[in-house]
Amino acid sequence: MTDLHDLVRKLRKDNGSKIVLLVGDGLGGLPLEPGGKTELETANTPHLNALAGRASLGLSIPVLPGIAPGSGPGHLGLFGYDPLQFMIGRGVLEALGIDFELGPNDVAIRGNFCTIDAKGDITDRRAGRIGSDIGKKLCEKLDKITIPGVEVFVRPVKEYRLVIVFRAAGLMGDVDDTDPQATGVPPLAAVARSESSKKTAEIANEFLRQAKEILKNDAPANFLTLRGIDKLPHIPTFEDVYGMKPAAIAVYPMYRGLARLVSMDVLDAGQTLSDQMARLEAAWNDYDFFFVHFKYTDSTGEDGNFAAKVQKTEELDSCIPRITALKPEVLIVTGDHSTPSKMKSHSWHPVPTLLAADTCRFDGSKDFGETSCRFGSLGTFEAKYLMLQAMAHAGRLEKYGA
Amino acid sequence: MTDLHDLVRKLRKDNGSKIVLLVGDGLGGLPLEPGGKTELETANTPHLNALAGRASLGLSIPVLPGIAPGSGPGHLGLFGYDPLQFMIGRGVLEALGIDFELGPNDVAIRGNFCTIDAKGDITDRRAGRIGSDIGKKLCEKLDKITIPGVEVFVRPVKEYRLVIVFRAAGLMGDVDDTDPQATGVPPLAAVARSESSKKTAEIANEFLRQAKEILKNDAPANFLTLRGIDKLPHIPTFEDVYGMKPAAIAVYPMYRGLARLVSMDVLDAGQTLSDQMARLEAAWNDYDFFFVHFKYTDSTGEDGNFAAKVQKTEELDSCIPRITALKPEVLIVTGDHSTPSKMKSHSWHPVPTLLAADTCRFDGSKDFGETSCRFGSLGTFEAKYLMLQAMAHAGRLEKYGA
Repeated sequence: MTDLHDLVRKLRKDNGSKIVLLVGDGLGGLPLEPGGKTELETANTPHLNALAGRASLGLSIPVLPGIAPGSGPGHLGLFGYDPLQFMIGRGVLEALGIDFELGPNDVAIRGNFCTIDAKGDITDRRAGRIGSDIGKKLCEKLDKITIPGVEVFVRPVKEYRLVIVFRAAGLMGDVDDTDPQATGVPPLAAVARSESSKKTAEIANEFLRQAKEILKNDAPANFLTLRGIDKLPHIPTFEDVYGMKPAAIAVYPMYRGLARLVSMDVLDAGQTLSDQMARLEAAWNDYDFFFVHFKYTDSTGEDGNFAAKVQKTEELDSCIPRITALKPEVLIVTGDHSTPSKMKSHSWHPVPTLLAADTCRFDGSKDFGETSCRFGSLGTFEAKYLMLQAMAHAGRLEKYGA
Repeated sequence: MTDLHDLVRKLRKDNGSKIVLLVGDGLGGLPLEPGGKTELETANTPHLNALAGRASLGLSIPVLPGIAPGSGPGHLGLFGYDPLQFMIGRGVLEALGIDFELGPNDVAIRGNFCTIDAKGDITDRRAGRIGSDIGKKLCEKLDKITIPGVEVFVRPVKEYRLVIVFRAAGLMGDVDDTDPQATGVPPLAAVARSESSKKTAEIANEFLRQAKEILKNDAPANFLTLRGIDKLPHIPTFEDVYGMKPAAIAVYPMYRGLARLVSMDVLDAGQTLSDQMARLEAAWNDYDFFFVHFKYTDSTGEDGNFAAKVQKTEELDSCIPRITALKPEVLIVTGDHSTPSKMKSHSWHPVPTLLAADTCRFDGSKDFGETSCRFGSLGTFEAKYLMLQAMAHAGRLEKYGA
């Protein structure tokens, strides 16, 4: 099996062209009934429809047929990193999601406050879903824990969720969860899955010992469990693979974190799509590749709110003229996965994808939707190949072989 | 490359949903002339057509583009086992096809009676295609062969074809065929391809020595050749991979054997499709997954009888209401390969596939045929991914990654 990145490194060239990857998170949807339209097909999207007429359309499979991805694998695929090869632990993703700057010596852990009884058995795995204000105060107490030879960071996420980071040279991440995934039993001890991760397990157990003492009077949050104990994956930088200088313009920390994972420059994106467009315009001359992330097509889908997802899709549409005015050689509009409001969750359904460039085999479609994309000339393809198409249409790939 | 089965084991959950996989053997076909319709498109299939309107359609590639599969790889692909990874020897398949219950210590061999002349050279590789009655009697004689330390079984298949099984602990299957694939030359000796299969080769040669003596007066069937000398492949059970309790409802021994290969429960299927439906209804509460096999779309295709294949396709259609009445969460109708009556053989053409579930991106097709499947939202996909789609639509897969 050829390594895609090696192939790109061998064939790439720099012609100064620019690529914009506009990601509507969870863009794909479902009709509510047979014969109905999806959210994207229901939305009034004049700019995307006009673009479709001078673009190639297709459907992107985020991971494999039938596999619904989380945000991590969904975005890695779009960036051209095989999401089955590059895996991101839950702790790392959670740390990225609160803008914690993870380094190569860090082991990141997702923590859950829980309730234990006098015997030490878990009675509530989420500590009665304590408020974020309480969680924050408890994290401040735990952040004072000291363990010789290790820096310990404890940061609140939301409600009962927190992030713990151990920083020391040589720590490995291969340690089992301590959450037994059940009540009526005690939390597990941290157990190393390999010889090299024994030190991390020891540190985790010492952390838990001190935490139990510190939290003993804080019921319902009188203890915590640890999950997804992991390090940053070894992952080549975007610039190393593609030879392009990349910028990320994302409002939400999780997506800034994912961009940082492949060493994109993470720009100040403001709060609104309009802010993001202003940033794109301002940074236009400084980068070759722009990842622009729009969250709300996903969050409205997760809420099961079909009408709201339609409306957010229309908002996404409204930013297209500001992007096309910059005349990128390649403009891609897609999603990291589908989030049908009918399912209120991420799904495996292939994601509508539009690639506009002068070198397109123009599909002549009159609209951008799941149905038109089904008949598009990009076909139904694995997301990890999208960047190859982008590079090709940007004139950034030499031919392969003589 | 991630192992698909490991991925499923990690993501699967049990929600009590039910999946029916209805296989019309050799379902795909060809039009007889440009502009014509295939067998499936010619058939009057009101129930399949109605189902298509609330389903996703697609085309399934059994192995790889251009590769026509036998029944073994065809079905393994549908069950989600990469047919290029899990290979079944000809001897094993032949033994499965006569309902011989192979165990882990068995080496199975496909035998062909042949004719040899006084010099020992083959004059007819199929022994004049002797009748099945003669073959049966000769097998009874050979079944009396004894070899120290080995159990020997000899069973007739049909005409000049037979199955030989050697049973002893530690026997390996890696032995060359003795059929020289030519006349005017003697049969080959059995030669071990590896150190560990030398014992099997010795046993095979001793078997051949005794057989030559026993058959010496039975011309035209005065000897035999051995092919496909092999053991059962190491193959994880269906339940181990998918966490579902599977049942097979198949009339023909070959397909019961293939189901047994992945440790499905093989139910008494009776003789007719109506018997099979009654069995499906009776067993409904006892299993999560049902493989229902219909042979006659293949055998009529093999006969080159377009009209008969059309009629058998209509018979297949008629059972749909009894399946949908059971309200499976997922109903899949497909084939293990195409058998165009125009070609009178298995072919590589992608197989029309219908997946009906509430979570479908409904294609709104008015019929189920090769052409409508070409435009379906399942796209053209490798058969080994079909089970991932089935699991996803059944709500039996967690999302991948955070």
